[in-house]
Amino acid sequence: MKVDRTVITDWFKQLQDNICEDLESLDGRGSFHEDLWEREGGGGGRTRILEGALVEKGGVNFSAVSGDLPSNIQQALKLDKPDFYATGVSIVLHPHNPWMPIIHMNVRYFETGDGTYWFGGGIDLTPHYVIDEDAVFFHRTLETACKVLSKDAYPEYKKWADDYFYVKHRKETRGIGGIFFDRLAGDESRTKENIFEFVQAVGNAFLPIYNYMARQNSQKTFTKDHKDWQLLRRGRYVEFNLVWDRGTKFGLETDGRIESILMSLPPHVDWKYNYIPKEDSEEARTLLLLRKGIDWSQ
Amino acid sequence: MKVDRTVITDWFKQLQDNICEDLESLDGRGSFHEDLWEREGGGGGRTRILEGALVEKGGVNFSAVSGDLPSNIQQALKLDKPDFYATGVSIVLHPHNPWMPIIHMNVRYFETGDGTYWFGGGIDLTPHYVIDEDAVFFHRTLETACKVLSKDAYPEYKKWADDYFYVKHRKETRGIGGIFFDRLAGDESRTKENIFEFVQAVGNAFLPIYNYMARQNSQKTFTKDHKDWQLLRRGRYVEFNLVWDRGTKFGLETDGRIESILMSLPPHVDWKYNYIPKEDSEEARTLLLLRKGIDWSQ
Repeated sequence: MKVDRTVITDWFKQLQDNICEDLESLDGRGSFHEDLWEREGGGGGRTRILEGALVEKGGVNFSAVSGDLPSNIQQALKLDKPDFYATGVSIVLHPHNPWMPIIHMNVRYFETGDGTYWFGGGIDLTPHYVIDEDAVFFHRTLETACKVLSKDAYPEYKKWADDYFYVKHRKETRGIGGIFFDRLAGDESRTKENIFEFVQAVGNAFLPIYNYMARQNSQKTFTKDHKDWQLLRRGRYVEFNLVWDRGTKFGLETDGRIESILMSLPPHVDWKYNYIPKEDSEEARTLLLLRKGIDWSQ
Repeated sequence: MKVDRTVITDWFKQLQDNICEDLESLDGRGSFHEDLWEREGGGGGRTRILEGALVEKGGVNFSAVSGDLPSNIQQALKLDKPDFYATGVSIVLHPHNPWMPIIHMNVRYFETGDGTYWFGGGIDLTPHYVIDEDAVFFHRTLETACKVLSKDAYPEYKKWADDYFYVKHRKETRGIGGIFFDRLAGDESRTKENIFEFVQAVGNAFLPIYNYMARQNSQKTFTKDHKDWQLLRRGRYVEFNLVWDRGTKFGLETDGRIESILMSLPPHVDWKYNYIPKEDSEEARTLLLLRKGIDWSQ
């Protein structure tokens, strides 16, 4: 089958459906609220929001938009023509339980009228408390997904995630990273079909990862101190998304659908002046692990 | 007396002292926690944080820093030489009571080795609920302070605040504005002394304004619904500060003291997906008033 925009779009829609269905069953209580929206310039999307028992606030969004790019973005992307088509699935889930990590996943496809195209995406994890065993499982699962493309893909995209999900002003990574990739197109070493297969492997890795995290952590008991720490860590998540995340910036500057873009923000967040966790605490240990270059897959 | 950097710096320090003393007495319960800090490149500051009865979280900061500007900033400011001296007082107070507004005040002075200098600053108000009477008092007080400089200053700096404190992606102002001014230097119509006198008038306007707001609003009873709305409005405050505020951006990009810069962020914040207040509610009325160009001083 030829991998064209229709095939890709249909697959993304199906991925959104599968993930939503499975998350509802995992959550047990919540069900997704759906908003269908249209974009003035062309296309639209399906924003789905979950406020449940496991997921305090989460979004699983699909969109497929088209039209003409603003000239500054056309220039930044070094494109000859302004017309484009972009489709993708974007997920952010903020759990109730502080022992559960925040998870983010995105797969996307971009195409222009003159046939230029690329894929992008990734999955990354932001635990409120880093749990080694979970980090290892997470990275090994991503490593396996990357093998669909090549044996070098995992280290390359793992480093890309370390560099991308970096809260520069705090000198700490957003979480334990994952994989990030952008502007992947066919070349002498891989076809468009290969890349799509890889993007599918990434999309399909989401549910096994989240189900594993829920099995491991969602029933753990927690104290008010754990919850307070979660709210502070969510503050860092907000700082990254609003200050550094290029995807969010792009959306806000190009007049995207604000509520779909900012569904990534957590439900309750705290900022405390100059909070420093006690030495040798679980919180202090987590901070030590929020840095680039840790090889969790070994 | 010659208005030089020493005179200005001393006056800013004294302003911080006066405001902190008065706020402690107004708050009744809290007292300021002070952190003295030094900057690697030169200078330092006094960050003072209040967590009290009236003020849930607030900061009153003084700093005086010097050294060489990074070359990109030197270019952006169109300066021949990199060496600079900058001093100022910066205040953000987040009140407990949703009927109390968030207030922000800043006065600052910047000077380079070759004698270039300018003043900047302003005061603006972000009510969770816009109360007409308070908005009128606030703007008239600022209008009076502006008369120290000229009769045209208020409308000009009021418009500047409307344009500056604009949450572009929400298409709403951060609050009811106030005044904002930057790069004021002496010219044929005004001396450096005139401008400093005006900046002092702005600094001195802070306490009368905040005392008035406290008298009017701090004893009002409120419900959980009012509090919930406050937490959502604080979310917009965060969005403005992290996405659009040039001062915050400048601080984060130039490796400023993070905890002093981000003291402006509220203690507890909520984000809810696509929250729309009930028609004709107090919340809906407030949203209608978050726009540019309302002449509150009339």
